[in-house]
Amino acid sequence: MENKLDRIKGPNDIKQFSPEELPALAKEIRRFLVRHIAKTGGHLASNLGVVELTMALHYCFDVTQDQIVWDVGHQAYVHKILTGRKDGFKQLRQLDGLSGFPKPCESSTDIFATGHSSTSISAALGLAVARDLKKEDHEVMAVIGDGSLTGGLAYEGLNNAGQKNTRLFVILNDNGMSISGNVGAMSGHLQDLRTATFYRHAKEEIHAALEKMPVVGRSIEHGLERVKNSVKYLFVPGIMFEEMGFHYLGPVDGHKIEELIDYIEKMKQLSGPVLLHVKTVKGKGYPYAEQDPAKFHGVGPFEVKTGQTQPMKESYSSVFGKTLVESAKKNKSIVAITAAMTGGTGLTEFSRAFPSRFFDVGIAEQHAVTFAAGMAKEGLRPVFAVYSTFLQRAYDEILEDVCFQDLPVVFALDRAGLVGADGETHQGIFDIAYLSHMPNITLMAPRSGAELKAMLHTALSYAHPVAIRYPKSAVEENWEQPISLPWGKAEQLSDGTDVTIVSVGAMFEIAKEVQALLAKENIQAALWNARFLHPIDPALIEACAKMPLVVTIEDHVRTGGFGALLEQALEGTKGEVLRFALPDRFIEQGTRAELFARYHLTAQDIYAQVLARKEEGHDR
Amino acid sequence: MENKLDRIKGPNDIKQFSPEELPALAKEIRRFLVRHIAKTGGHLASNLGVVELTMALHYCFDVTQDQIVWDVGHQAYVHKILTGRKDGFKQLRQLDGLSGFPKPCESSTDIFATGHSSTSISAALGLAVARDLKKEDHEVMAVIGDGSLTGGLAYEGLNNAGQKNTRLFVILNDNGMSISGNVGAMSGHLQDLRTATFYRHAKEEIHAALEKMPVVGRSIEHGLERVKNSVKYLFVPGIMFEEMGFHYLGPVDGHKIEELIDYIEKMKQLSGPVLLHVKTVKGKGYPYAEQDPAKFHGVGPFEVKTGQTQPMKESYSSVFGKTLVESAKKNKSIVAITAAMTGGTGLTEFSRAFPSRFFDVGIAEQHAVTFAAGMAKEGLRPVFAVYSTFLQRAYDEILEDVCFQDLPVVFALDRAGLVGADGETHQGIFDIAYLSHMPNITLMAPRSGAELKAMLHTALSYAHPVAIRYPKSAVEENWEQPISLPWGKAEQLSDGTDVTIVSVGAMFEIAKEVQALLAKENIQAALWNARFLHPIDPALIEACAKMPLVVTIEDHVRTGGFGALLEQALEGTKGEVLRFALPDRFIEQGTRAELFARYHLTAQDIYAQVLARKEEGHDR
Repeated sequence: MENKLDRIKGPNDIKQFSPEELPALAKEIRRFLVRHIAKTGGHLASNLGVVELTMALHYCFDVTQDQIVWDVGHQAYVHKILTGRKDGFKQLRQLDGLSGFPKPCESSTDIFATGHSSTSISAALGLAVARDLKKEDHEVMAVIGDGSLTGGLAYEGLNNAGQKNTRLFVILNDNGMSISGNVGAMSGHLQDLRTATFYRHAKEEIHAALEKMPVVGRSIEHGLERVKNSVKYLFVPGIMFEEMGFHYLGPVDGHKIEELIDYIEKMKQLSGPVLLHVKTVKGKGYPYAEQDPAKFHGVGPFEVKTGQTQPMKESYSSVFGKTLVESAKKNKSIVAITAAMTGGTGLTEFSRAFPSRFFDVGIAEQHAVTFAAGMAKEGLRPVFAVYSTFLQRAYDEILEDVCFQDLPVVFALDRAGLVGADGETHQGIFDIAYLSHMPNITLMAPRSGAELKAMLHTALSYAHPVAIRYPKSAVEENWEQPISLPWGKAEQLSDGTDVTIVSVGAMFEIAKEVQALLAKENIQAALWNARFLHPIDPALIEACAKMPLVVTIEDHVRTGGFGALLEQALEGTKGEVLRFALPDRFIEQGTRAELFARYHLTAQDIYAQVLARKEEGHDR
Repeated sequence: MENKLDRIKGPNDIKQFSPEELPALAKEIRRFLVRHIAKTGGHLASNLGVVELTMALHYCFDVTQDQIVWDVGHQAYVHKILTGRKDGFKQLRQLDGLSGFPKPCESSTDIFATGHSSTSISAALGLAVARDLKKEDHEVMAVIGDGSLTGGLAYEGLNNAGQKNTRLFVILNDNGMSISGNVGAMSGHLQDLRTATFYRHAKEEIHAALEKMPVVGRSIEHGLERVKNSVKYLFVPGIMFEEMGFHYLGPVDGHKIEELIDYIEKMKQLSGPVLLHVKTVKGKGYPYAEQDPAKFHGVGPFEVKTGQTQPMKESYSSVFGKTLVESAKKNKSIVAITAAMTGGTGLTEFSRAFPSRFFDVGIAEQHAVTFAAGMAKEGLRPVFAVYSTFLQRAYDEILEDVCFQDLPVVFALDRAGLVGADGETHQGIFDIAYLSHMPNITLMAPRSGAELKAMLHTALSYAHPVAIRYPKSAVEENWEQPISLPWGKAEQLSDGTDVTIVSVGAMFEIAKEVQALLAKENIQAALWNARFLHPIDPALIEACAKMPLVVTIEDHVRTGGFGALLEQALEGTKGEVLRFALPDRFIEQGTRAELFARYHLTAQDIYAQVLARKEEGHDR
């Protein structure tokens, strides 16, 4: 029975509740989240943590006027429920279903689309400055987790906001961990604040004591007033935020809704930028998620009663992780870096086996890359395992710090290609384009777990930058020793006379099917696995140049993709290239299979187009 | 007479000096810097500011073992002098001459190549961690300016370094300004520290007073010890750095070399990460530079006696700036953003005319972009004026915050193409490649000041993201009203039957010459100015598809450049494309003309190659 939740049909409906009814509503929302996410999968733990916080914000503000920017945005489920999108949860994160992130196209109360970390303060400051210039008077706020605060962009935003006197609220959702446990000095500072109750109580008493204190020495005589003013240095928790120019409020228990409402009302009375520190528990209210919030951060379907998820299949990520552990046993100079994605990138085993050679730098991809460059400069072999989409944050550092100095850093680009349920902001479909024009870097893509193993092995004995891109996919793996690949060479699987098919990484399975379909029509296709996407194997280029028709297949946008690179390499020759790639647009959520179908990247689609082209050719 | 300076022939030679001799050596170094930079141009003010600091570091450390990472690196001239590269200053920043930045290929004492801001702490942490894993024991330090601290990457580095107990020195070179005056809350915090002498004196006395203080109330009784420990909150300047996990030392006067040496020796006694705060004066010792450090930051040749520089010519930057002021008078929603480059990007006049619509966010390109996205979301028309190479820092934010939400932000990409004396790290030769695969963005390049005016005018009435790239070049300008360009259309200047030449932006002058040279050989070339680099005008594509030979000319790397885009657009047609572009490598310093000659991008070179290709064609 969700009697209370049923009364929420749209924005501001929560205001009809009395304060006393809110805890019961919170309970219903939690039950709703657990029940639905257990079926669809999704970001459970972070949403359970912000139930009361979201309710309190909706209770105290008018979300049709006031603007909330949700940092990262995977914690906006409760916001979606409270703005009348409850029914969408049946299709959460599915093709054409409700997004797992804020989407302005879904609701005007989703003010700013997010997905990547640490943008909210900058975006909110932009909204607030615009409001002031337009002489409007609604409120603007950013809700940001402590993990996102590790990102340099958040600091740039704080630094700029603190300097201005713009009215802006930053709500720090502090659950003491980002995705896989929090790291960094800022985290220690927040820990201090969490236990700072004593200071608050002591503040007034000590202040009184100072008033009575005998004046000791000349310098104090002159400076007493100043010292008193700066008593805040002694007692105010949140000194860093105060120093950054923010009013600091809190910390407040993020699960006591009445207290939260009190603090928010207090915050509304202040002027200038305010930071409200809210302590929350990730996974709150669902014991399995509270115990293992990392597991329930982004989770697949699970059994509510037991918290049991489906068993993990072997994946490119797990193959990567195991291979790296094996390599690291033999080569002591190998070190691994993650930006708060230890589990996701398959590094858990490495982190346990080689704690002194493992570096979780927090959500700080830029630092991860330059830090890796420093280590490589001194002869280590750093491997940065990172999602393709998040490495975008470090474009400049890859180019200027790694490639310019031609340093042997290996980028293990997980979640390259289509990633499924996370949608537009998480697709790894730009990496060939943003890496291939960088001098000195080599780009590879494996077509199997065994090939990933071989590529990592090969990359680790090469003295220059390498990126290996691989998708979020299950793979089979037999755990034989990795072989060394001939450097720079593509893999030719079969000869042909009519057309050459070149596949990129895991698209190989589709390419093979296309070849089989064409064979039925007596079209003999040569089949190549590119392996090295850039620079392209000269033998492959030569083979393509001789063929009247070349077909490339990749899970990457068309502009700047592998097909484009091959087209450029074929300059001056007469081979025609049919490029099968994703269109130049942001690609929505959906399973890989669904999206391949929608964007005509199935074997059947490709076969049909190749056939049509061959027939056209005959007509000429 | 530079008797003392002549004794410096290589690293560590400074150690032969007695402490008493050092001030005289400093004087000689300053004289040397002023005399040479007056002839060659270069970064004067920042180097004058670090004379004593660099000397002290070289005096206290062994630079053949200990590692100094210079943030940005334009302040490493004194380091170059002290490592025996004095004679190179005659060819400073010239083709094949001494670089204006640290270059490991120039000297093994240039530990890490820099050029872009805020990398030094991350790189140094990488070096330090590698040292520890290899069980070596040299020292590692980063020298970073207060301006660079605004960059999020520096914060990510501090945050990670502060958490580890790695031995690492961060030397904060605090001159109270970045390139064009400092901004941001951190700047305010540093200002507090600069005037914090009182606190240091008061600290011990107050501490004594607290000891004697009667105990007031239970909470104090229990917590007194804790309060005493945290007296540091009251008195220690550098609270933010202490909170970040650093030992904070200073501030120390960066022009008193003996005091500096004392502090550095003190620093060496500490363990873990240490931050030494050094107050310096930008331009120190050369009055004109002290008075106007922004002018003498990166300066052309000047007259030593008068400080007179050559008069500023009209440039793309100045045309941009004036046009934006004119547009902003008519359209109140236009706002301008710079990342610490007000003067360089031509925004000085705008900043004076519209202070409330002008935003200098400091060295924080990521924030600048997301902040702009926030403003655009609310209906403003933000223009971010930024050097092409520095916008690389914000790749992810352009893609995810601006392009994904299809927001009307205008990127005015100054210093696109070859930039001359700053060399590899500053060339704007990757922007077409890193922007063109982003959905929803339009890329333009003007061939003249008048066309830049028209493009800015046109972009500002378009409701989607636009980037306009233009070089560091002089232009003529007549200051008529800007015209509106037909959206998406290339400019055809002349018809031809044998070849189509398509030029990108300012390469037009060369293209015109090529056309003229070909005409002498009776080869009739059609001449087009692309104007819209992406998406390319369909009429231009059609015209190219009909022609047996197409020639593209651009000052951008070959992979992912305009020629590549045109090649991709011509897929399936038979036109051959000869792409004249820069090779896929980092391009060294030198004048644009010198580098065009070296990389065969002169009219004569291009003409010769086209001719050869045409003749080959006849042979077939």
